[in-house]
Amino acid sequence: MTLTGELFIGQGRVAAGEHFRGIEAETGHPLEPPFGAANPEHVSRACVLAEAASRDYATRPLSDRAAFLEAIADNIERLGDELLERAHLETGLPLARLAGERGRTVGQLRLFAAEVRDGGWLGLRVDPAIPDRQPLPRSDLRSRNVPLGPVAVFGASNFPLAFSVAGGDTASALAAGCPVVVKGHPAHPGTSELVAGAIAGAVAASGLPEGVFSLLNAVSNDVGAALVADPRIRAVGFTGSRAGGLALMNIAARRPVPIPVYAEMSAINPVLLMPAMLEEKAEALGAAYVASLTMGAGQFCTNPGLVLGLEGPALDRFVAAATQAVTEASAATMLTPAIHAAYEKGVGQLIGNARVAALARGKDAQGPHQGQAALFSILADDFLTDEHVSQEVFGASSVLVRCADEAALARVVAGLEGQLTATVHFAAADEPLVARLVPLLEEKAGRLIANGWPTGVEVCHAMVHGGPFPATSDGRSTSVGTRAIERFLRPVCYQDFPASLLPDVLKPGAQQGLPHRLDGRLMAE
Amino acid sequence: MTLTGELFIGQGRVAAGEHFRGIEAETGHPLEPPFGAANPEHVSRACVLAEAASRDYATRPLSDRAAFLEAIADNIERLGDELLERAHLETGLPLARLAGERGRTVGQLRLFAAEVRDGGWLGLRVDPAIPDRQPLPRSDLRSRNVPLGPVAVFGASNFPLAFSVAGGDTASALAAGCPVVVKGHPAHPGTSELVAGAIAGAVAASGLPEGVFSLLNAVSNDVGAALVADPRIRAVGFTGSRAGGLALMNIAARRPVPIPVYAEMSAINPVLLMPAMLEEKAEALGAAYVASLTMGAGQFCTNPGLVLGLEGPALDRFVAAATQAVTEASAATMLTPAIHAAYEKGVGQLIGNARVAALARGKDAQGPHQGQAALFSILADDFLTDEHVSQEVFGASSVLVRCADEAALARVVAGLEGQLTATVHFAAADEPLVARLVPLLEEKAGRLIANGWPTGVEVCHAMVHGGPFPATSDGRSTSVGTRAIERFLRPVCYQDFPASLLPDVLKPGAQQGLPHRLDGRLMAE
Repeated sequence: MTLTGELFIGQGRVAAGEHFRGIEAETGHPLEPPFGAANPEHVSRACVLAEAASRDYATRPLSDRAAFLEAIADNIERLGDELLERAHLETGLPLARLAGERGRTVGQLRLFAAEVRDGGWLGLRVDPAIPDRQPLPRSDLRSRNVPLGPVAVFGASNFPLAFSVAGGDTASALAAGCPVVVKGHPAHPGTSELVAGAIAGAVAASGLPEGVFSLLNAVSNDVGAALVADPRIRAVGFTGSRAGGLALMNIAARRPVPIPVYAEMSAINPVLLMPAMLEEKAEALGAAYVASLTMGAGQFCTNPGLVLGLEGPALDRFVAAATQAVTEASAATMLTPAIHAAYEKGVGQLIGNARVAALARGKDAQGPHQGQAALFSILADDFLTDEHVSQEVFGASSVLVRCADEAALARVVAGLEGQLTATVHFAAADEPLVARLVPLLEEKAGRLIANGWPTGVEVCHAMVHGGPFPATSDGRSTSVGTRAIERFLRPVCYQDFPASLLPDVLKPGAQQGLPHRLDGRLMAE
Repeated sequence: MTLTGELFIGQGRVAAGEHFRGIEAETGHPLEPPFGAANPEHVSRACVLAEAASRDYATRPLSDRAAFLEAIADNIERLGDELLERAHLETGLPLARLAGERGRTVGQLRLFAAEVRDGGWLGLRVDPAIPDRQPLPRSDLRSRNVPLGPVAVFGASNFPLAFSVAGGDTASALAAGCPVVVKGHPAHPGTSELVAGAIAGAVAASGLPEGVFSLLNAVSNDVGAALVADPRIRAVGFTGSRAGGLALMNIAARRPVPIPVYAEMSAINPVLLMPAMLEEKAEALGAAYVASLTMGAGQFCTNPGLVLGLEGPALDRFVAAATQAVTEASAATMLTPAIHAAYEKGVGQLIGNARVAALARGKDAQGPHQGQAALFSILADDFLTDEHVSQEVFGASSVLVRCADEAALARVVAGLEGQLTATVHFAAADEPLVARLVPLLEEKAGRLIANGWPTGVEVCHAMVHGGPFPATSDGRSTSVGTRAIERFLRPVCYQDFPASLLPDVLKPGAQQGLPHRLDGRLMAE
């Protein structure tokens, strides 16, 4: 397939001006072809098409919507190795990792297809009329969820497949019945074009209105800002930096009609080491920690950027093992020169911080944009008084906080901002201590992990990839797993409607086979 | 019971300075006793207590939480006629209406008690481990909803019982497991004190931590602003004016940690009259419309402030009937002198609008703060070009929009802001026209009503009392009905937790009897 560098505005391919190029991550060299950048008129056209498609797409049979999601997955698989190779060039991520990420991407499209067919997300509720109720009769009341309307999705740099053009936000918005306008990430425009072709092809093959999907490329933030401000957009999905997420929240809140923003922004994902477990497995934990830290050059939202342990010989053994593992860790190409520069800057600030001890750096870089792992430590009291140390450094950098006792550890946890995850390593003898910490951790994070590592997010029904601000803009939601569909829905109630005018799923008898509440009682089928 | 004018800060009764008094609605005379107004220190103390109570309250058995809600209902009933008489004095609402509202208030507390026991709102999801999955095993993943934490609730003037101190927002937040700090409405401080006593008594009798409930009285907006800005508050429930709701949204969005605001703000609740129905029942509809319009002096969020009809003799008959009914409508005491003044101002602006025809006023006032019903009409094209006419006038004022044809009617609907309700009156012959309008109405309102009137909101499972902005701040929610509990929850996932450390409802086997999803499959019991 030949890349053209064009935008996808509905089924139209548009050659825009103001070109930019993808960059080969390993060398920093520009890649062919040049890509056109969207202007405000392109944003507006994509949004007009999305709104025009909205009602039609929302009212197609659920089986059609599910088949459309499956067609996207099939089309992505048909792209074959070309997709992985282009993504590798643009992001520097290894091919094996990208193959796994492709599996996750098509898997989540198919999971949402199954979820669409399941229908539980429709939230069907039927309270039949009670004509003879005293003192007043009760009306017939039925409610269901409807899609919010067109959704703006921002591709993320660190998951060029699973959280980009056809990633989790797009899959869940399409599953909810919302057209999607993607603002592609400029770090992987070729990957974006290939995936956009897969979606646009599925739109056409499924006979859907063209506005169900558009892809706008851009380098300037103005394009994303215009997209979020467009009155036809009704919700936003974003994964990226805290500054970026806050900027979008601000734009959305100031619109004449404010809209919800689901921004997954920043986290340092604390890992707590309990004493009995540390005593038992300090060395193995130290090595496993660094494996999680350095995976994907540390460029995961769930990267373990903070470790808390109680002072003592076992913690020293953990530190020794982790120090050695970091020292032996190869440098790894980062996603973009800018991300690499920001990583080096963040690491440099920690090195220059007098309260922070620099324990280890990974092996020297073998290429221009490779990040070296970095390990630091700090005392709990110093951590509590220096807010800089708790800021995310995106990449394989992590800080160990040495706590004198349980009280100090609890103070550190209590002082943390909202997080995506919190992990505890513990043995049976540690359980009373863990039991005291869990209620605090529940308030801080969306996912609690026992004796594992936060990297690796299962796409399933029970997953929560979310958490209190500033981990996300809205801790009431998840961006991974089937529950993500709920972000793009709102309820509508129908009072005393005749069957002929009710939506199909609310007609008398039509709830058979769909989860629903009848007079409050849940009916599984 | 003797009113003291004190604040409720947990179980402490606090005599504050800066007194204000309730006003007898019918006469405008000040009532005994003087009430103390909260200062910033009181706000802070109430929030500190709420946060201190939060974890304990959240982890009580669901049966205890349900019993607590029922105890509040019982205590409110025990207040007897004194509650109704005080509410009547302070609001001017008839005793019969207040008796009905009390029934709704205790009914919704008991409905939420049943909902707490049902447990569907826990959103339990269990995806068991798959140790032998290739290429990677799956962890055991379980998730549930937890309460957000302390909620600030603003009492509404127009429902001194059902949407005030122990109203829908309080009931749903307490049901979710969140402590509540109420900012009482200054228009009915005595009513608020009586109800607060009922709640505080139930807190004590149930052995709950005192911070589960506080009542702060105030006249100045500063107290509410400080409450929403307090870092310990995690969500806000508000029913009131658009200006008030927007101000709270703004404060919440600018906090270091933004929080959700559920503000129910303004609506004009369009009523669409279809031609065959109008032909058949013009006179009866005209009379029924005015009955809905003038109920409770028009002081309902769901008051029918806008009627749309197609030009013709049948519409003229409707207008004649409505005009006559308005002319015969008695003036009614409004909730406060300020609300009455705002109503007169709004009606005056419509009278002074050259595009608007004043059709009728109700009978003359018999007291100082009585509102007279008012009926206006305007042509569709004029309505579309004058945004003032579509603004809510809180009270028994309504505007009829004369539409030349279906296209004009659809344009008027398309131009409306978000609404709580949309009503259609139609006969069988009108159904094709209604079928074309319903998709548009679904996008505009949270509840669609067939051949009824929007006033009167059933408290049940399928109810949606919400709608797109600016009807509410968040069209994804409802403030009436059991679904309101969802506003105060967030999901937490537990990965590979041993049974000993899982919350009770997620322990293996504990989902029996509770709605849950097992590997995505819904299990009703």
